Amino acid sequence: MTTKIHILNGPNLNLLGERQPEIYGHDTLADIEARAQAQCDALGMELTFAQTNSEGGLVDLIQAARAQKAAIIINAGAYTHTSVAVLDALSACDGLFIVELHLSSPHRREAFRHKSYVALAADAVIAGFGADGYRLAVEAVAARVAR
Amino acid sequence: MTTKIHILNGPNLNLLGERQPEIYGHDTLADIEARAQAQCDALGMELTFAQTNSEGGLVDLIQAARAQKAAIIINAGAYTHTSVAVLDALSACDGLFIVELHLSSPHRREAFRHKSYVALAADAVIAGFGADGYRLAVEAVAARVAR
Amino acid sequence: MTTKIHILNGPNLNLLGERQPEIYGHDTLADIEARAQAQCDALGMELTFAQTNSEGGLVDLIQAARAQKAAIIINAGAYTHTSVAVLDALSACDGLFIVELHLSSPHRREAFRHKSYVALAADAVIAGFGADGYRLAVEAVAARVAR
Amino acid sequence: MTTKIHILNGPNLNLLGERQPEIYGHDTLADIEARAQAQCDALGMELTFAQTNSEGGLVDLIQAARAQKAAIIINAGAYTHTSVAVLDALSACDGLFIVELHLSSPHRREAFRHKSYVALAADAVIAGFGADGYRLAVEAVAARVAR
Amino acid sequence: MTTKIHILNGPNLNLLGERQPEIYGHDTLADIEARAQAQCDALGMELTFAQTNSEGGLVDLIQAARAQKAAIIINAGAYTHTSVAVLDALSACDGLFIVELHLSSPHRREAFRHKSYVALAADAVIAGFGADGYRLAVEAVAARVAR
Amino acid sequence: MTTKIHILNGPNLNLLGERQPEIYGHDTLADIEARAQAQCDALGMELTFAQTNSEGGLVDLIQAARAQKAAIIINAGAYTHTSVAVLDALSACDGLFIVELHLSSPHRREAFRHKSYVALAADAVIAGFGADGYRLAVEAVAARVAR
Amino acid sequence: MTTKIHILNGPNLNLLGERQPEIYGHDTLADIEARAQAQCDALGMELTFAQTNSEGGLVDLIQAARAQKAAIIINAGAYTHTSVAVLDALSACDGLFIVELHLSSPHRREAFRHKSYVALAADAVIAGFGADGYRLAVEAVAARVAR
Amino acid sequence: MTTKIHILNGPNLNLLGERQPEIYGHDTLADIEARAQAQCDALGMELTFAQTNSEGGLVDLIQAARAQKAAIIINAGAYTHTSVAVLDALSACDGLFIVELHLSSPHRREAFRHKSYVALAADAVIAGFGADGYRLAVEAVAARVAR
Amino acid sequence: MTTKIHILNGPNLNLLGERQPEIYGHDTLADIEARAQAQCDALGMELTFAQTNSEGGLVDLIQAARAQKAAIIINAGAYTHTSVAVLDALSACDGLFIVELHLSSPHRREAFRHKSYVALAADAVIAGFGADGYRLAVEAVAARVAR
Amino acid sequence: MTTKIHILNGPNLNLLGERQPEIYGHDTLADIEARAQAQCDALGMELTFAQTNSEGGLVDLIQAARAQKAAIIINAGAYTHTSVAVLDALSACDGLFIVELHLSSPHRREAFRHKSYVALAADAVIAGFGADGYRLAVEAVAARVAR
Amino acid sequence: MTTKIHILNGPNLNLLGERQPEIYGHDTLADIEARAQAQCDALGMELTFAQTNSEGGLVDLIQAARAQKAAIIINAGAYTHTSVAVLDALSACDGLFIVELHLSSPHRREAFRHKSYVALAADAVIAGFGADGYRLAVEAVAARVAR
Amino acid sequence: MTTKIHILNGPNLNLLGERQPEIYGHDTLADIEARAQAQCDALGMELTFAQTNSEGGLVDLIQAARAQKAAIIINAGAYTHTSVAVLDALSACDGLFIVELHLSSPHRREAFRHKSYVALAADAVIAGFGADGYRLAVEAVAARVAR
Repeated sequence: MTTKIHILNGPNLNLLGERQPEIYGHDTLADIEARAQAQCDALGMELTFAQTNSEGGLVDLIQAARAQKAAIIINAGAYTHTSVAVLDALSACDGLFIVELHLSSPHRREAFRHKSYVALAADAVIAGFGADGYRLAVEAVAARVAR
Repeated sequence: MTTKIHILNGPNLNLLGERQPEIYGHDTLADIEARAQAQCDALGMELTFAQTNSEGGLVDLIQAARAQKAAIIINAGAYTHTSVAVLDALSACDGLFIVELHLSSPHRREAFRHKSYVALAADAVIAGFGADGYRLAVEAVAARVAR
Repeated sequence: MTTKIHILNGPNLNLLGERQPEIYGHDTLADIEARAQAQCDALGMELTFAQTNSEGGLVDLIQAARAQKAAIIINAGAYTHTSVAVLDALSACDGLFIVELHLSSPHRREAFRHKSYVALAADAVIAGFGADGYRLAVEAVAARVAR
Repeated sequence: MTTKIHILNGPNLNLLGERQPEIYGHDTLADIEARAQAQCDALGMELTFAQTNSEGGLVDLIQAARAQKAAIIINAGAYTHTSVAVLDALSACDGLFIVELHLSSPHRREAFRHKSYVALAADAVIAGFGADGYRLAVEAVAARVAR
Repeated sequence: MTTKIHILNGPNLNLLGERQPEIYGHDTLADIEARAQAQCDALGMELTFAQTNSEGGLVDLIQAARAQKAAIIINAGAYTHTSVAVLDALSACDGLFIVELHLSSPHRREAFRHKSYVALAADAVIAGFGADGYRLAVEAVAARVAR
Repeated sequence: MTTKIHILNGPNLNLLGERQPEIYGHDTLADIEARAQAQCDALGMELTFAQTNSEGGLVDLIQAARAQKAAIIINAGAYTHTSVAVLDALSACDGLFIVELHLSSPHRREAFRHKSYVALAADAVIAGFGADGYRLAVEAVAARVAR
Repeated sequence: MTTKIHILNGPNLNLLGERQPEIYGHDTLADIEARAQAQCDALGMELTFAQTNSEGGLVDLIQAARAQKAAIIINAGAYTHTSVAVLDALSACDGLFIVELHLSSPHRREAFRHKSYVALAADAVIAGFGADGYRLAVEAVAARVAR
Repeated sequence: MTTKIHILNGPNLNLLGERQPEIYGHDTLADIEARAQAQCDALGMELTFAQTNSEGGLVDLIQAARAQKAAIIINAGAYTHTSVAVLDALSACDGLFIVELHLSSPHRREAFRHKSYVALAADAVIAGFGADGYRLAVEAVAARVAR
Repeated sequence: MTTKIHILNGPNLNLLGERQPEIYGHDTLADIEARAQAQCDALGMELTFAQTNSEGGLVDLIQAARAQKAAIIINAGAYTHTSVAVLDALSACDGLFIVELHLSSPHRREAFRHKSYVALAADAVIAGFGADGYRLAVEAVAARVAR
Repeated sequence: MTTKIHILNGPNLNLLGERQPEIYGHDTLADIEARAQAQCDALGMELTFAQTNSEGGLVDLIQAARAQKAAIIINAGAYTHTSVAVLDALSACDGLFIVELHLSSPHRREAFRHKSYVALAADAVIAGFGADGYRLAVEAVAARVAR
Repeated sequence: MTTKIHILNGPNLNLLGERQPEIYGHDTLADIEARAQAQCDALGMELTFAQTNSEGGLVDLIQAARAQKAAIIINAGAYTHTSVAVLDALSACDGLFIVELHLSSPHRREAFRHKSYVALAADAVIAGFGADGYRLAVEAVAARVAR
Repeated sequence: MTTKIHILNGPNLNLLGERQPEIYGHDTLADIEARAQAQCDALGMELTFAQTNSEGGLVDLIQAARAQKAAIIINAGAYTHTSVAVLDALSACDGLFIVELHLSSPHRREAFRHKSYVALAADAVIAGFGADGYRLAVEAVAARVAR
């Protein structure tokens, strides 16, 4: 039996691996996608992996996950802190399991990153583990599904 | 003689009818558009009806209404509360009649929905009447035009 | 079959038509009452129309509407922004349909007019249509009743 | 020897027993008055019991209590949170014992009910005991007087 | 030629002279009225002098002054700090000269007395001179009228 | 039939009677305990009476009351205003009746004493009656139990 | 017998009469000084009249008034809103009568002009009477002195 | 080779499994400890597992972890939001890996739980996975150690 | 030797010249681009000039400038005040010179335009010179490059 | 034909070149003045260049520029953020062109430097270009004058 | 004649000398105690020196100092900023001299360290002198005692 | 070998000894200077002692201390709370030891005295010891120099 996971990435995450590798690591988003794909294959789960710089585009991606009744792992980047539209899209996903993901811990950055609209709709949060957070999130979703 | 009305809908309103019908009703946005079209036909008014999940897309739609000197009925959804760009686009519509519309009353929801950038540019507000609010707004615009 | 509507007006609305007619129009409250009466007669609804400058008086009027199980259209004027007593009276009207009404849009005026206690108890809002808002409100109540 | 107690009730408390009895109980204000009267008779105290929906009316009642040098038990309802006039009237009662009373605990309701102007002038507070709070307040006043 | 002055007093000012005479002085409101009457007689001005504990009553008094095109000297007491209704009534008095008056200086009292709605509509302020402030205000109005 | 009451006292209340007796009275906590014991004996209730300066200790005491399904009368002293841990412990006492008690009225003291975490979990409040508040609280609990 | 009055003027008041005469009038500070001198001569009072653009200079002027035990009429201009040093200097004038003066009413200007440090030390305020405020202030001081 | 992990639990977590099991699950803290012990045994890591209701006690536990150079997984409960002492103790653990853990997501609870002092010192956060969060945290620490 | 400059324009700037020309001037964005092109040709610099109404589109444009290691002159319009995504994109441009540009001065407009996310990443600001600001910015960049 | 420019510098700018040259550069204020003088000579403009550590002194300098109807380039240093007196002096310069100048960008420094009173009166801002900002400002003023 | 001094140290100060010696120095708390003991011996004063990680423990220590009528030098560490209980304990020490002590200056650290509850009860403050602050404090207390 | 100390005093400190001696003591600033001079002579340090009521004057004094590489003991009086210019001057004194001094403890006075700009640049603080604070500060500076 297959279960669906959508991993959705917001603005500027396409620069991963290129920018400040001493902080964010040398992994690119493609590297992360490849590892998540392998992990999902092993777990018998179906993965959709996407990135967009656009707020409306992120809303579209969430609505697509909703249409497929997929679990959502979302690293909304900057839209975490500013987008009520993303919150509303996530809130429309009644019954889906939603994990908010961040590479670093937002609470150790500027004050305006302490507010999270995503958190108002997410069931769980994983932050500060860098690229390894994606692996933990997939595993946690799988564990939740198994129950 | 024909007068133009643009009814513009923001993010997640494409989910109408599908999501929490016990609250928002069973009408889809297509149902609302059909009724608004019939109402405008009866009133001899020309209707443009659109929806977008994108903030920039909503700015584009407002600029199009502005170019046609149309009255605007706008349900900006989440962008109501966060978008200065939408406010600026509406503020550029000097002399056009603008109605802010909401299905439910934002003041009975979370505090961050109490702030409205749209309200700073809109001439009037209709909220809390569900889908019937669209009919009232068209009628109010027609009454205003008739004067 | 007859349905009851109470249109309740708060402080200083007795000056309507006299004061800044270029903004608020030349209609007096008596003109508005006359038109609302005609509209209700046509719709087969029973109208009560009242105005008071007193906060306690407005609470009394709301309690009277409550006792008669009437729909309420309330333009609470300044008490919109300051009166918890009015809010409490409205909150006691369980099951009645309540429309908050303003001649102009409070969000385009001073900041202390952006807060509305009435909005915490009202089902719907109509603002910014001048005297025509009364007509729209009666019509909306009638539509709601018809359902 | 007789001592005077004035129990003063603010807006909407005349609805007691009628409204949300599952929360506020089935006692009407008349029931409460009757029991307080019996309790005062037993204690040899002289009771005045009043209710008004008007802020100015409440100021009048407080000034009357002041004129008679009576202890005051005041459930100011919504005016608790908004009325500096009530505060000023209470502050003028130098030397009188003043008990602020609430049926439910304001701190468990909306944030705007957390502020109490009455508390700035009251010597004591009893809240959350429903109608039984009136009995406790009379008893506490009697104990204070006895000292 | 006669000019009209309305001196309007808000809640608890009827206690003047009785309460804390070491602070507010031994003058009663009747004493102040008598002196103001004599001063107006000497200046050939027509005086109306009133006091009310009611917010709506104060709105009524202001509307009466407006109807007579009288200059207004208003000591709104506690309503200074809480009443948008009083502000709106004063704002309707286009072209009338309005003086805000306080016996003591509100800025030396609690923080909630630092905000004045009356000040948003008043042309001038006199505060801190005790009962003598009434005399100064009448004189200032007369000087303004003479110009 | 016996009912249990736990009266729990927070930091610095062990100094009662010693410190500022002109304000807090000459009663020590031992005096209060003795009177409460007598009152409970008369009412056929079982009393536990404790004091601690430690936040964790207060959490322990609340958990002990919870384990015994006792009604709680809590004067949390300074922890009233700062302790989420105490709030959480009280919130875990589902179905127990909880009275928040203060000797003086916190709203007449510094602003940081106006916030009460205890109030978020307490059913009722008694404040400002000095040591007599303990007697009132026991009586109120007994009355509640009797129902 | 002579009494001393110091009229102290803060920054930019030397531009009076030159700048926006339609608002502030055509009187220069020299005109005001001349009239105040005549008024003081008539009243048998000794006048010192000064202006400075410097905060420290204004502190010096206040200390000089203090040394002479003079009543102070101070129009501190912008320093009203920003200068704790001016407040401290005025606070050191124990027992002197201090009148805060403004040409226009600060509460009708920007929000940062609503705060007054001067008001924390002044006994009284006169604002909004333009240049005539100086005359009223001198008269009020004389009346106070006469008592 | 063995690596040390200290799992530290704050106030009221000893009630786990007993309280609101429909929300927090039926697992007790002992169940969680047992599973964490097995997981650590399998991973070749040395586990210390502790709980305390005391803020100072939690500081002691953190200092003990620091002395042993152990990785820390901390569910500080209510002290998360109020304890600078806990923050300081964690900040003293230079070079240790610290994971902040919560059973549910604090951002979906009351506003005062949105602030986290622990987050200022923690490298990573896991929240909202219930008891499974402990397993994820141990695994994440092991992965970090392996690198 | 050629150096690259990207001039990036945000939402509603495509309306320049059309809207409120008495404030913003008669220059269209095309006029500005033409002049900037000529200026860059004269300076031997390579110009990219773009406008978008979309927040994500602006992020894309910034990432393109980053990829080309171009200096950036950005008039982000409304996104200046609301977009953390734009800030993050700019922050990723390590080592590039970034100039924030506004036609008018945001500090003289509404309070919500006083906050600038762009300013957190920009090296310099030019505001209030209208279309001439573009010329100054190009010149300043050229001067910086020359050093 | 000659036009006048006054370049006014506030507190601590006399230390320029001496302090933190790695940030502010090695140019002294004398160097900047010399270059501005040469630039003005070339442009046929008359330059006044001044510095003062005194708030009142800066007010004096602005009044002098006003008297000469000169354009003003003002780097008010710390007074930018605290001086209403400087704002008032600038506001009195009706019709003069005013440029606010900063060496570095205040928005990248402490929060209290984000507020600018100067900006409320200035027509334009140049910040973050170091000493080169003076040259740009003179050029911009000349361009404005030429129009 | 001997006088008593209690030097009380709060949470994490037991780590002194071990942690960040480049900032806090190499002195341990034991070193500081030894020097303070020697200093007190020389001055003929009796020293009690204690440290605790517990808030309640610190309250106990303060109450012990109170019982002995000792002067108090308190470095409350993190409890400085969060503990109303510590404030209340110190406030109970009527007539004792209390010095608040910090190794570094709290105002140069995070904003939440700028608030001090201890300061509301302390007579004096010494901060920023590192371990030498203890010596200064003892000396200052001795000087105070000598007077 | 001689070391330099500059003791700088701000506004109104020239009134010391004259004003409220029961609070601030009978010492004049001259008395304090004399004692500090004797203390410096004994310690072999060179003292400069100055007072000014002017903010700009205080900046000048700090710049003079900076030029002489002297340690600074500054009692900035009211400018402590309002002067960014003083902060900037102190911040320019890289490497100099700066002690902020207050006669009484600012945290026990009005809220606006709780903010200190001086503290952002000072290394240490001594407050609440009255005139004896000057002696302690000199001694602390000498101790620091000796190291």
